[in-house]
Amino acid sequence: MTERSSSPAARTVLQQCLQARLQVKPADEHSEAQFVQIDRGMVIYICFFKGATDEILPKMVSSLLNLRLCESDSGRMVSVVELPGSVLLVPQATLGGKNKGRAMQYHNNISKEDGLRLYHAFVSLCEKEVTAASAEVTVKHGTYGNRQVLKLDTNGPYTHLMEF
Amino acid sequence: MTERSSSPAARTVLQQCLQARLQVKPADEHSEAQFVQIDRGMVIYICFFKGATDEILPKMVSSLLNLRLCESDSGRMVSVVELPGSVLLVPQATLGGKNKGRAMQYHNNISKEDGLRLYHAFVSLCEKEVTAASAEVTVKHGTYGNRQVLKLDTNGPYTHLMEF
Repeated sequence: MTERSSSPAARTVLQQCLQARLQVKPADEHSEAQFVQIDRGMVIYICFFKGATDEILPKMVSSLLNLRLCESDSGRMVSVVELPGSVLLVPQATLGGKNKGRAMQYHNNISKEDGLRLYHAFVSLCEKEVTAASAEVTVKHGTYGNRQVLKLDTNGPYTHLMEF
Repeated sequence: MTERSSSPAARTVLQQCLQARLQVKPADEHSEAQFVQIDRGMVIYICFFKGATDEILPKMVSSLLNLRLCESDSGRMVSVVELPGSVLLVPQATLGGKNKGRAMQYHNNISKEDGLRLYHAFVSLCEKEVTAASAEVTVKHGTYGNRQVLKLDTNGPYTHLMEF
């Protein structure tokens, strides 16, 4: 077993889906709730820790989009870009939690301002890399800071953890 | 930031749900697919690593069931037992994956036989602890080794990682 010598700058959880729907704007007195939706593809939950910088983003995006995590119709493992599938990015600060007794604490999470900036840069980079790689793949994303009201339908979520 | 001095024996990912449905037996020529379902509560995805033993289970189960991860109707954070909610246990060996380049490898995962034994002991312990704590909470679980065909509906998955 390998030892981890330092804490990660970002934590992601990846789940495969047949369809995923995420609220991007809650209902208010003037309008109904708004949602984004993808069909077959991958949901990426993401959380940044204190100390994370823009420098980690290119490697992170390239790695996440090119990992062979998706099962093609012929049973071969391919990347979400190769599938081709869609990508749903879900900001998920809770992933940075650490328990102290029965309570969860989020002391290592990045500040809200820096997190928002990195999240937007991460989304842009994903969109750019995907557009360059395949016209058939789309990227959708949740609203940073919102409650991530999510509905997920899978043929096996095939959940993975990737830290950077 | 804290350093991790050793690899974990078990990795879990926790998601809150309004409803979750999991296939426990795929369809075959003789019968339709079978599913288990919970309403409001928590989904626990679980993976054991090489070296995991029964010794970690009591602390693990107690910790997972008593963490204050669930939002009560009054907005207070309570445990799934206190909610009271239901629990869906999903064996998820993919959580043990580590990438080598673009491919995922699972070299640190426990053997299938030991994993099956620990998973069954984990399920039993969860059922026992839940029964002792609340008559209103039920535990459902997936079939070890199966494809975990899952459908999830959330009011925010509030995803957490817990390692033991």
